[in-house]
Amino acid sequence: MGGMSFPPDATVSEAGEFPLIQRLRDLFAQGEQVLVGPGDDAAVLRIRDGHVVVSTDVLVEGRHFRRDWVAAADIGHRAAAANLSDINAMGGRAHSLTIGLAAPRDLPAQWALDFAEGFAEECASVGASVVGGDLTSADSLVIAVTVLGSCRRSPVLRSGAEPGDVLALCGRQGWAAGGLAVLGRGFRSPRVLVEAYRRPEPPYDAGAVAAEAGATAMIDISDGLLAEARHLAEESQVAIDVRRDAFEVPEPLVAVGAATGADPLSFVLGGGDDHALLATFPTPGVPDGWAVIGSVSEGSEVTVDGAAYDGPTGWTHF
Amino acid sequence: MGGMSFPPDATVSEAGEFPLIQRLRDLFAQGEQVLVGPGDDAAVLRIRDGHVVVSTDVLVEGRHFRRDWVAAADIGHRAAAANLSDINAMGGRAHSLTIGLAAPRDLPAQWALDFAEGFAEECASVGASVVGGDLTSADSLVIAVTVLGSCRRSPVLRSGAEPGDVLALCGRQGWAAGGLAVLGRGFRSPRVLVEAYRRPEPPYDAGAVAAEAGATAMIDISDGLLAEARHLAEESQVAIDVRRDAFEVPEPLVAVGAATGADPLSFVLGGGDDHALLATFPTPGVPDGWAVIGSVSEGSEVTVDGAAYDGPTGWTHF
Repeated sequence: MGGMSFPPDATVSEAGEFPLIQRLRDLFAQGEQVLVGPGDDAAVLRIRDGHVVVSTDVLVEGRHFRRDWVAAADIGHRAAAANLSDINAMGGRAHSLTIGLAAPRDLPAQWALDFAEGFAEECASVGASVVGGDLTSADSLVIAVTVLGSCRRSPVLRSGAEPGDVLALCGRQGWAAGGLAVLGRGFRSPRVLVEAYRRPEPPYDAGAVAAEAGATAMIDISDGLLAEARHLAEESQVAIDVRRDAFEVPEPLVAVGAATGADPLSFVLGGGDDHALLATFPTPGVPDGWAVIGSVSEGSEVTVDGAAYDGPTGWTHF
Repeated sequence: MGGMSFPPDATVSEAGEFPLIQRLRDLFAQGEQVLVGPGDDAAVLRIRDGHVVVSTDVLVEGRHFRRDWVAAADIGHRAAAANLSDINAMGGRAHSLTIGLAAPRDLPAQWALDFAEGFAEECASVGASVVGGDLTSADSLVIAVTVLGSCRRSPVLRSGAEPGDVLALCGRQGWAAGGLAVLGRGFRSPRVLVEAYRRPEPPYDAGAVAAEAGATAMIDISDGLLAEARHLAEESQVAIDVRRDAFEVPEPLVAVGAATGADPLSFVLGGGDDHALLATFPTPGVPDGWAVIGSVSEGSEVTVDGAAYDGPTGWTHF
């Protein structure tokens, strides 16, 4: 495939499908599990451990990201992180991903390249490869990602929490929501929160560690801590209580709360996008890096300090 | 999860994310390879043969389908077929799929259910299951599918064609393009072509048979016979010549050609969407059900009867 170049300011339409795909492919280094990489009708992966853990996520411009708030490379990091985190939440490790990109014809080709570079970088940080994709035009910018991974132990489901377990959290939580609140008001600081929103730092090693330590149930917090706790409660048929005093609300969130009139804890309890992990463990047994934030009992409610929570609890997709 | 019902005329927004997802999930029967099905952070699949073949495709309303031309269930069949066919073209068999659906808020929930039912039916026809998905709102209707499968033998790539091989075709070819031409002019007949466009019938068994028979290269025809022949020629670094007299143009295409002034063979040579298979074989060695339509030689050109073809050769995605 010679002659695959285009002007740096070309749109995806001007660049053309095949030249752009060729340039994108060059950004994706292939891991040792890849027997056939991008460019054929399908990729072929070596699977050593008898199973595959697979998840898919769709991100839509204007709904999950805004190009004027987050640079292309960071959107790539976020899109990869959202998917890698789903494998983390099973106690597994991701190895291979595919990207479907539906892009407006006037999208700068450089945007697609920067996005792919950020995406590939985030994948490489956990040793995973982009093994295939599809590129097509659409009125909206839509990013569809599928991730494949594996678990060394049995996958940790949402349904295994037992009365008597503790609820524990690993990773930054509420920072991205704080950053989003800041951006939504037209500000750019506290910078640490804006950066947390733009480029989440999920605790990628924590899922496998939790599985090893005997976590009974686990989920990643993409839509809000209490919303995800509700998923755990429903799937496990238990009640979950979260303790306010378990959280030391970080100073930048206190500052945003003061500036916006919001309860700073509402970012922690209702915010998503950090991709922290929420898990239940039999007591004692919470591994390093995890903080106990609540308890599991018989019942079906999700409460905060024993009472219903009346703040925002998470993100709705419709 | 009780109470997951909504009025039959609800939009996806009115139905709500979780009730709609629950109803969609109920449509997806799980195969024996599924250790954990839809509803957790990820699905878990048993992989018996040490590898996975994976491909992804994005379909966009207005670009790949029109809701006023094709019923929801048929769009489901088409979306599944396009992906299952990619595994077929590797000589493999699909076992598991994920669907990402970005839908306008005013899309009828029943449309999503009918789509999913058609999708699941097409998958079931080859013994594959829908194991996961994602549902979100967007301005456009975008369907992103990822398919996983396996090959009993080595996968058949695009790059293995050798000078001296024959080029062979399996499956209906040009019928869907004829149907699309008919629909594009506001007609509904010949009905057999319109139906071929609405619900393709890819030769799902032919890929594995071709692999068994020693096919050297293979591709599925989604974008046009000559366009896909060009992919084979480029990846294999060979020349390919297609013989006009190898095709018996079916009567309905002759009729559409006469009515529209088009060369009826142009549907066969330029049309996509039937998901026929194109493969190269060492002579002799073409299995039953395959028709020899050309030859492979040294060089790099794709020709028809030895000369450049000046008709439309396929679909461009931008």
